[in-house]
Amino acid sequence: MKVKLASSYGFCFGVKRAIKIAEGYENSATMGPLIHNQNETDRLQNDYNVGLYRELTDVKPKDTIIIRTHGIPRADLKELKSKDAKVINATCPFVTTPQQIVKKMSEKEYSILIFGDEEHPEVKGVKSYGKDQEDVHVILEPEELNNIRFKYDKIATVAQTTKKKEIYLQIVNELILKNKEVRVFNTICDATFENQDAARDISKEVDVMVVIGGKNSSNTKQLHSICLENCENSYLIENASELNKFWFDNKKLCGITAGASTPDWIIQQVVDSIEKY
Amino acid sequence: MKVKLASSYGFCFGVKRAIKIAEGYENSATMGPLIHNQNETDRLQNDYNVGLYRELTDVKPKDTIIIRTHGIPRADLKELKSKDAKVINATCPFVTTPQQIVKKMSEKEYSILIFGDEEHPEVKGVKSYGKDQEDVHVILEPEELNNIRFKYDKIATVAQTTKKKEIYLQIVNELILKNKEVRVFNTICDATFENQDAARDISKEVDVMVVIGGKNSSNTKQLHSICLENCENSYLIENASELNKFWFDNKKLCGITAGASTPDWIIQQVVDSIEKY
Repeated sequence: MKVKLASSYGFCFGVKRAIKIAEGYENSATMGPLIHNQNETDRLQNDYNVGLYRELTDVKPKDTIIIRTHGIPRADLKELKSKDAKVINATCPFVTTPQQIVKKMSEKEYSILIFGDEEHPEVKGVKSYGKDQEDVHVILEPEELNNIRFKYDKIATVAQTTKKKEIYLQIVNELILKNKEVRVFNTICDATFENQDAARDISKEVDVMVVIGGKNSSNTKQLHSICLENCENSYLIENASELNKFWFDNKKLCGITAGASTPDWIIQQVVDSIEKY
Repeated sequence: MKVKLASSYGFCFGVKRAIKIAEGYENSATMGPLIHNQNETDRLQNDYNVGLYRELTDVKPKDTIIIRTHGIPRADLKELKSKDAKVINATCPFVTTPQQIVKKMSEKEYSILIFGDEEHPEVKGVKSYGKDQEDVHVILEPEELNNIRFKYDKIATVAQTTKKKEIYLQIVNELILKNKEVRVFNTICDATFENQDAARDISKEVDVMVVIGGKNSSNTKQLHSICLENCENSYLIENASELNKFWFDNKKLCGITAGASTPDWIIQQVVDSIEKY
């Protein structure tokens, strides 16, 4: 069976980078799970003794602590350093940038608007870099602007989300009409959309499609549904053991994509198995 | 006949201010016509001996030169000063602001985009304040963005036009998606829209409407057509001599508005005449 990989799939740039960093620090611990994939966190634990801390109180002096892609709030970073831990920063550059923008702009007396979900750890981290926390506002919908009182008529805005750009632009447009100056920093992370676009493309040219990822993962399920639109023989599996050889009967080309939490080695096992059919 | 004036009509803030300034400098000359209304420029000439220069070459040493609301290009201002003329700046603050923004932002290495008409004198003036004239771009439609190569991926943008805000936002949205940072300065002049909104409101509550302004003036014609939508008895006149008393037969309330080049004293003559019916 001939196999073709989507032009973009699986881990994003930031996660790949963080795993590489973690592999370089044996006997360390990540602050929160590096990735939502148990196989991969087990691998890091078994091969590199990279453990997992869930609370700052878990940290002991001289620990080597890896900050995951999401980043952490400024106060937490300070506390880590005060505990005399060695801090390894694997924050995704796409998160570090908005952190620094929020810091700089709030120091220059701009009110801050973050497009994102207040509950997400990366948003909490970015927000924490604002000088005046009362004047850093986080919203997901344009309607929420009505409830905000900005301190200044100069607004700086960043996007920290994988949500639709169109909604961000709606928010920005309202800001422009009501304020003297709006500084829009394009910090939207395209990774999710890149995997989706690539899945759409490849599913049009193959006669069977395999999507690898967690069955409860919303981004994997979305990839599967995009593939089904173009290729009725699209299957969602978590790993190679779930493959069914009948799927490939009388088929010529199998396309592969994978959710954002699926490690390359799981994908490779699937590819190897399909190629044997 | 009872008369009611629209809540906003006639000269905008900037023109009123410029005329006031011109009246304070007898025996001066304006660089280009202060306003497109011959009656008003005649009045300034007759009452204050404020003349009119059309070319820089007209200027003689020790002349007092009034810069009109539109502003002038930086090089022209320099030339005026080199001729030892006394320069009185009546540039509208809504034009001075984008001039200064373009200056400051281009010095900070932002590419500049001006939403406006390249042929308009105020746009020429604003553009001239850019440090690198090759990197100051003037457009009226989003499609024109395709032909632009910005020097930087940081763009500062100002609006110098009375065109629709919606089109400006479309342009800004495209910029946001393609650049690292977009600084949007809300410099849109609302004067035209204020007169239009006020004409719409008042024409709904009167039974006869008089619009005063040049019959060739596009902004006056637009006011007239807005009034006709709500009040079929809407008449466009240039001055009180064109009033027809039959228009007011059996009418109770007459609304008044005026184009952006119609001086108050012409409006007052019309009001006085109608009140006598």
